[in-house]
Amino acid sequence: MISGPVTPDVPTPRPATRFDRRLSKILDHATAVFYEKGYEGASMRDLSRVTGLSLAGLYYYFESKEELLCLIQKHYFTVVVDRLQKRLRDVNDSESRVRAFILNHFEYFLTENYKATKVLSKEDDVLAGHLGAEVTALKREYYRGCSELVETLKQEKGLEFNTRVAVLSLFGMMNWIYTWYKPQVDPEAGALARQVGDIFLAGIKSSVKRH
Amino acid sequence: MISGPVTPDVPTPRPATRFDRRLSKILDHATAVFYEKGYEGASMRDLSRVTGLSLAGLYYYFESKEELLCLIQKHYFTVVVDRLQKRLRDVNDSESRVRAFILNHFEYFLTENYKATKVLSKEDDVLAGHLGAEVTALKREYYRGCSELVETLKQEKGLEFNTRVAVLSLFGMMNWIYTWYKPQVDPEAGALARQVGDIFLAGIKSSVKRH
Repeated sequence: MISGPVTPDVPTPRPATRFDRRLSKILDHATAVFYEKGYEGASMRDLSRVTGLSLAGLYYYFESKEELLCLIQKHYFTVVVDRLQKRLRDVNDSESRVRAFILNHFEYFLTENYKATKVLSKEDDVLAGHLGAEVTALKREYYRGCSELVETLKQEKGLEFNTRVAVLSLFGMMNWIYTWYKPQVDPEAGALARQVGDIFLAGIKSSVKRH
Repeated sequence: MISGPVTPDVPTPRPATRFDRRLSKILDHATAVFYEKGYEGASMRDLSRVTGLSLAGLYYYFESKEELLCLIQKHYFTVVVDRLQKRLRDVNDSESRVRAFILNHFEYFLTENYKATKVLSKEDDVLAGHLGAEVTALKREYYRGCSELVETLKQEKGLEFNTRVAVLSLFGMMNWIYTWYKPQVDPEAGALARQVGDIFLAGIKSSVKRH
């Protein structure tokens, strides 16, 4: 468990250098382009247009469209994991920790970075080689973080279920939203996290009686 | 509710004509190509290679790659809805009916048509215009079928939850499998349907106490 000072408010880490700030802006723009056109459908020319940078200017920040997608994925997963760790610092109850994971995910991906959710979910398997491996490692860390929270709850309450299936079902509930969420119709992140948390927690807690 | 004779075994409807049989084979091959290369990445030339048909031969069956994707989506959704209706004929208990929906989905998409699951989930929003509208109508019918089953259970047990969020969370659990399922590691369709059903049903049934 991660311990440390209480941090009620969790700001996005501010990019430090001018290069980082520029890159961060480019990643935002590029995410929007991939969201609209899909990764395959987007060209470096499209990216050049929306960022206002020349192709040569873009290549100063990354070598290829693959590397750009890798940077995007690394950026979002790094920040969401970072926020999660801060958020978990002052939560001790194991059920609340699972709820904190869900809320963190929805707040970050639904409220603040909706377009990124689609890009990250949909372009899940595009990257191969070492770029793919870097992203996979980060995703695995994120998955493992969730899995440990669920496993702790499971041990504590003497529950019996397949943790892998349960956790990946939870990720399914959280990630599938990019296909259906309508801000005008559906509850905001907090209410959504509550309902998904209700279903998931009551769902796994029932397992002790069933097996 | 659909009533009729009990049908313990539910075969895929057999294509009737030579044209239909040929088309059905082409759809299988094309699904495999889209699975490997992605829709954007696959060319009519790839499809020509795997089906053994000339480009002109392919265009006899459909006019464009878009129409092909539309035919694939219509095919799988038509068959899964058809099977579901047959399966529900002899199930009266509303909880068992929700479980029957989940089992039907996993048996069809996971066991028999795994590659189709990825293509259908991933290429969800590619089609526009009237082709897209046809597929959307079929998907909506499938969604609505599930929604009615859940709504019936909700009324019967006096539960309180957002049906749309619950049902789309269930679809998330079911559809996200294309990103993680490993036949060597994970439970087969029946066991998976049971665990997802356990989580979902205990999850929504708990809502009466919470609100």
